[in-house]
Amino acid sequence: MSRVESLIGGVKRPPFDILRAAHVELVVADLDASLAFYDGLLGMIVTERSDGVAYLRGWEEYLHHSLVLRQGAAGQEPAVDHVAFRVAEDADLDALESAFAARGCPVRRIAAGEETGQGAALRVQDPFGFPLEFFHDMTTVPSHTQAFHLQRGAPVLRFDHLNFHVPDPESAFVFWQEMGFRATEYISTDGEDERITGAWLRRKPTVHDVALTAGTGPRLHHFAMWLAEPSSVLRVCDQLAAAGHVHAIERGPGRHGVSNAFFVYLRDPDGHRIELYTCDYYTGDPDHPPLRWSVTDPRCRSFWGTRAPDRWYEESSRVLDLEGRIVDIREAGVDERTEVMA
Amino acid sequence: MSRVESLIGGVKRPPFDILRAAHVELVVADLDASLAFYDGLLGMIVTERSDGVAYLRGWEEYLHHSLVLRQGAAGQEPAVDHVAFRVAEDADLDALESAFAARGCPVRRIAAGEETGQGAALRVQDPFGFPLEFFHDMTTVPSHTQAFHLQRGAPVLRFDHLNFHVPDPESAFVFWQEMGFRATEYISTDGEDERITGAWLRRKPTVHDVALTAGTGPRLHHFAMWLAEPSSVLRVCDQLAAAGHVHAIERGPGRHGVSNAFFVYLRDPDGHRIELYTCDYYTGDPDHPPLRWSVTDPRCRSFWGTRAPDRWYEESSRVLDLEGRIVDIREAGVDERTEVMA
Amino acid sequence: MSRVESLIGGVKRPPFDILRAAHVELVVADLDASLAFYDGLLGMIVTERSDGVAYLRGWEEYLHHSLVLRQGAAGQEPAVDHVAFRVAEDADLDALESAFAARGCPVRRIAAGEETGQGAALRVQDPFGFPLEFFHDMTTVPSHTQAFHLQRGAPVLRFDHLNFHVPDPESAFVFWQEMGFRATEYISTDGEDERITGAWLRRKPTVHDVALTAGTGPRLHHFAMWLAEPSSVLRVCDQLAAAGHVHAIERGPGRHGVSNAFFVYLRDPDGHRIELYTCDYYTGDPDHPPLRWSVTDPRCRSFWGTRAPDRWYEESSRVLDLEGRIVDIREAGVDERTEVMA
Amino acid sequence: MSRVESLIGGVKRPPFDILRAAHVELVVADLDASLAFYDGLLGMIVTERSDGVAYLRGWEEYLHHSLVLRQGAAGQEPAVDHVAFRVAEDADLDALESAFAARGCPVRRIAAGEETGQGAALRVQDPFGFPLEFFHDMTTVPSHTQAFHLQRGAPVLRFDHLNFHVPDPESAFVFWQEMGFRATEYISTDGEDERITGAWLRRKPTVHDVALTAGTGPRLHHFAMWLAEPSSVLRVCDQLAAAGHVHAIERGPGRHGVSNAFFVYLRDPDGHRIELYTCDYYTGDPDHPPLRWSVTDPRCRSFWGTRAPDRWYEESSRVLDLEGRIVDIREAGVDERTEVMA
Repeated sequence: MSRVESLIGGVKRPPFDILRAAHVELVVADLDASLAFYDGLLGMIVTERSDGVAYLRGWEEYLHHSLVLRQGAAGQEPAVDHVAFRVAEDADLDALESAFAARGCPVRRIAAGEETGQGAALRVQDPFGFPLEFFHDMTTVPSHTQAFHLQRGAPVLRFDHLNFHVPDPESAFVFWQEMGFRATEYISTDGEDERITGAWLRRKPTVHDVALTAGTGPRLHHFAMWLAEPSSVLRVCDQLAAAGHVHAIERGPGRHGVSNAFFVYLRDPDGHRIELYTCDYYTGDPDHPPLRWSVTDPRCRSFWGTRAPDRWYEESSRVLDLEGRIVDIREAGVDERTEVMA
Repeated sequence: MSRVESLIGGVKRPPFDILRAAHVELVVADLDASLAFYDGLLGMIVTERSDGVAYLRGWEEYLHHSLVLRQGAAGQEPAVDHVAFRVAEDADLDALESAFAARGCPVRRIAAGEETGQGAALRVQDPFGFPLEFFHDMTTVPSHTQAFHLQRGAPVLRFDHLNFHVPDPESAFVFWQEMGFRATEYISTDGEDERITGAWLRRKPTVHDVALTAGTGPRLHHFAMWLAEPSSVLRVCDQLAAAGHVHAIERGPGRHGVSNAFFVYLRDPDGHRIELYTCDYYTGDPDHPPLRWSVTDPRCRSFWGTRAPDRWYEESSRVLDLEGRIVDIREAGVDERTEVMA
Repeated sequence: MSRVESLIGGVKRPPFDILRAAHVELVVADLDASLAFYDGLLGMIVTERSDGVAYLRGWEEYLHHSLVLRQGAAGQEPAVDHVAFRVAEDADLDALESAFAARGCPVRRIAAGEETGQGAALRVQDPFGFPLEFFHDMTTVPSHTQAFHLQRGAPVLRFDHLNFHVPDPESAFVFWQEMGFRATEYISTDGEDERITGAWLRRKPTVHDVALTAGTGPRLHHFAMWLAEPSSVLRVCDQLAAAGHVHAIERGPGRHGVSNAFFVYLRDPDGHRIELYTCDYYTGDPDHPPLRWSVTDPRCRSFWGTRAPDRWYEESSRVLDLEGRIVDIREAGVDERTEVMA
Repeated sequence: MSRVESLIGGVKRPPFDILRAAHVELVVADLDASLAFYDGLLGMIVTERSDGVAYLRGWEEYLHHSLVLRQGAAGQEPAVDHVAFRVAEDADLDALESAFAARGCPVRRIAAGEETGQGAALRVQDPFGFPLEFFHDMTTVPSHTQAFHLQRGAPVLRFDHLNFHVPDPESAFVFWQEMGFRATEYISTDGEDERITGAWLRRKPTVHDVALTAGTGPRLHHFAMWLAEPSSVLRVCDQLAAAGHVHAIERGPGRHGVSNAFFVYLRDPDGHRIELYTCDYYTGDPDHPPLRWSVTDPRCRSFWGTRAPDRWYEESSRVLDLEGRIVDIREAGVDERTEVMA
């Protein structure tokens, strides 16, 4: 067993039950422009809009929101206010509060309704600087899975996962396993000095709820929404280009090596990155074997060999701390592109 | 060479050049309801609407219309006013007028503008009772092939073909070859008494501009519009069902044996049948061999073996003569379903 | 809350953890013919074949088998030997044995290796007569999710679910909830005398691991395999028809109302029914609301309104008891087609 | 009317009838490797192989070949022996011979059978140095459009078009119109000094039989084969990557701006470029309006904005003259990438 293999598994079950990655809240420069993108072009449902905040969801979702767009103050840099995970029951919030407090992380209780549509919640700044929210209660609303005649754009069906830029993916990899997540795939360098440059971990039985990518961080590389099938991905590209938003298409569409998913990466009007994602695989059995990719395999990022543009590696959304300040970042010690340790 | 094979080809080129099947004009009971179907649900473009007549086209088309919906008088039976073919130049109208007059068919010149957007035209009642129109000139308008962000429904891209119910398909088969059409596929009974029960003939190099199906006629079995690809056909079915129009879906979706196309048949609010059709094949070389299907092959109608519902065989749109009267019909001498001669 | 609604939920968690439906073992009349169908036409992988038994799996699967085909004795009726569920750990087998014994059901321990590739297991005859197997350990083999160049047919990716014909679906519905399954959708009659005619329950967070359909039983209506996307379903229909197996296509392809999945039902050489299934939705949150369909909604079985053929309602595979004898059947008290209580 | 617009149309019909682009003959370094690519991976049918030459066709085609692979001599540079067009009848060969002789172009008659499966033909070196072949007669063989169970790879259905690298696309544009081709789309520079940098011309009513791209020439940029639909393009990429040929994928898959087609460009083992192409549009009416793209529109090459790699612009297959010698090349006066005149 290699050093990297020894980092996988062998973690005891934590005293809380995170169900899945559930939503993100983005600070945006122009709420109307952001809604034109997420609602008008990608085809999400606006559940509610008020006071400079819009709450959106996918067509399959029955919870109040899976994306929150908050109008920033004049001159405020677009950023990620927080990313959220749903837990199995409210009692998990207590267990999570204890766990993060024990790690010395800032924690804050969020009262029911403080985030519209959401019950009591917990926000923490994790050891890597990310603003995480945990919640169980959320107002339910009708899902519209089969309202095909009303659907626009992609359409976006549901929230799928989060991808973090972290300077040291191995530490974060250990952390997320301690949170109860299981590794499904990872990319590592070859040779004796093997190091993880990317890792995919899941709670729900898909390829991931959280992905960790070596890069300047803490930053949110992207969040991802699930579409019905590959033809949906192609159609939304046609629609974006036709509507004059060709520059929103950053990478793809294509097949991922990691995850096997069919994807496209888009940049929203503030540069926040969203992945439209479909057709990964089932990972729910407890002995599901993690899959390693060599960082030198041209197919691990794009199964068809297309190199991602440099900005896909370099650019990411800054995150806020619990006081709303931009969190400082530091560079990664490894760059997947050069396959060379710094 | 069998008797049926001797009916194929060997016809000299006529003194006119029909380019392709081009449009239909339908008498409808409720123009608003028809537009809700063709515009709202199937996603055609309304070029112009006035005086109880609407002119529609597909997203790829640059001619004024490929479908005309005309509000019928109170109590008037929905019917087909005429079906139209585009010719290569205006001079072809003279040659066609002579040819039909020589057959003793009623003919009528249509002045430019009499049909909105269309130049000088010729209408005839063919030997089987069908109201045919021939035209060359038509107002051009922008095509919107790549306006993906505006497209709805299927979307319908362009007119593809006409399918006639005729009591004696063999006579009609000879006639349409004399009009310069070439046979691409046909269905016939087995054995010594072989008879054609269906035939597909083309001018443009696809499987057909005109199909002939044994049945009570003259009636228009359906007209067909081209979609981009099979996933478009599936999507419009989802949308129709979601919008409460599940009963509009009559047959399919599925793969045709004849033509290899992917299809679905719909019934509009008046019962007029439209086929959404895609992915047939190229037939443009002069020696392209006609393909025979035995009427007993379960795959000739539906390659996957699904039997068409009886109403698909039995129901069709009545047609008008040049004076606007419903044309009398008679039964066919052969029924594909029983494979038995009357 | 209606009587039927009162049947949903409110069940305490059982002392065992069933992960998901996992495989079926079929008795077949001609193993070569069955392999030609499942391996050659549908594109499953034969992990191992010996002594008149073949073990197959999908391209995504890393366990030894998800389909077992066992050559029947001369003259033996094709039947279902057992259907199997994977449990979270071996200790669950003890808890399940106790639970079924307490219900007075026949139980039998299966030694490791008695079913090739499988560890210790438990077989029971459930209160409705079905032969259920529970196991945790199974030999692992490589998955071939991305071996696209080797894939044939559909290709089949993984086992998805089981559908049982039961005379009294409500009793079975209560039973499966007690086994820890959660209802996702159901069909019921309208009016005061509301009764469930079909129900879908899940362990893994898809629409179902088990479906219950009112009908003569106990019989296995079908088992289902997951495909990548709708175009895979269309392609396998084309291939089956081209290969001379058009009669294997029984119903579809189409969109389900219930589950929203895209599907086709096939009959194997012995008449066992397999569904190829894709694109349902995520159900993993604990408050996921069950969806009711009225039995009178033409879209609940086929979202596009196509009525299933009568044989789809009437025909099913007989099941064996723990001694290998065909289990007696009785008729259902409700027929979804007539929507009338017997 | 601009200078460029004045170059379009207004040409009288030539005294011959070219039906369409029909095949290419490639000199290859290793016939086995080339067949592994075209037959094994892309799924073409080998009609015949003998004496170091293989004749292939698509599944829809009923002529003997649409691709000829000829084993080169030891050390011979891979090249294009000739590209071929089918004419309506043998008499067209005489008219073409006269027309090319009148231009001072080298011409050579090819006896029936000199190219296996082909009747009498004419080869010429056109004014730009390209080795063109014209033929009418070719041995017919069964088409296998619906042999879905036997199809592999893409599968390739039929020959679609040729794309030439020419130093001066405007002169070639005039020439091909004189050959009876009609312009469907073109790319030109903006401003007073407008120049054509790419042009698409057709005989059959699709977007093109011949495309002209500004670049070092005469060289064959690519030939293209038609697939059934976009999902076929995606599938062959998956299969190529899985089979270890990820480097064969040069550009795409994606949507073209020009032609609206869905495409991928591949490089064969010798570097010859093949495009897999589907879903363009109908252009057969005589007044079909040519579509202009500005060379500055990021969508004209890739509708989704992805820039083609430099090698796609720079690399091409050298062509042979009628004596089998490599034809000299010269650089283009315009580079689409820089949008600057040399």
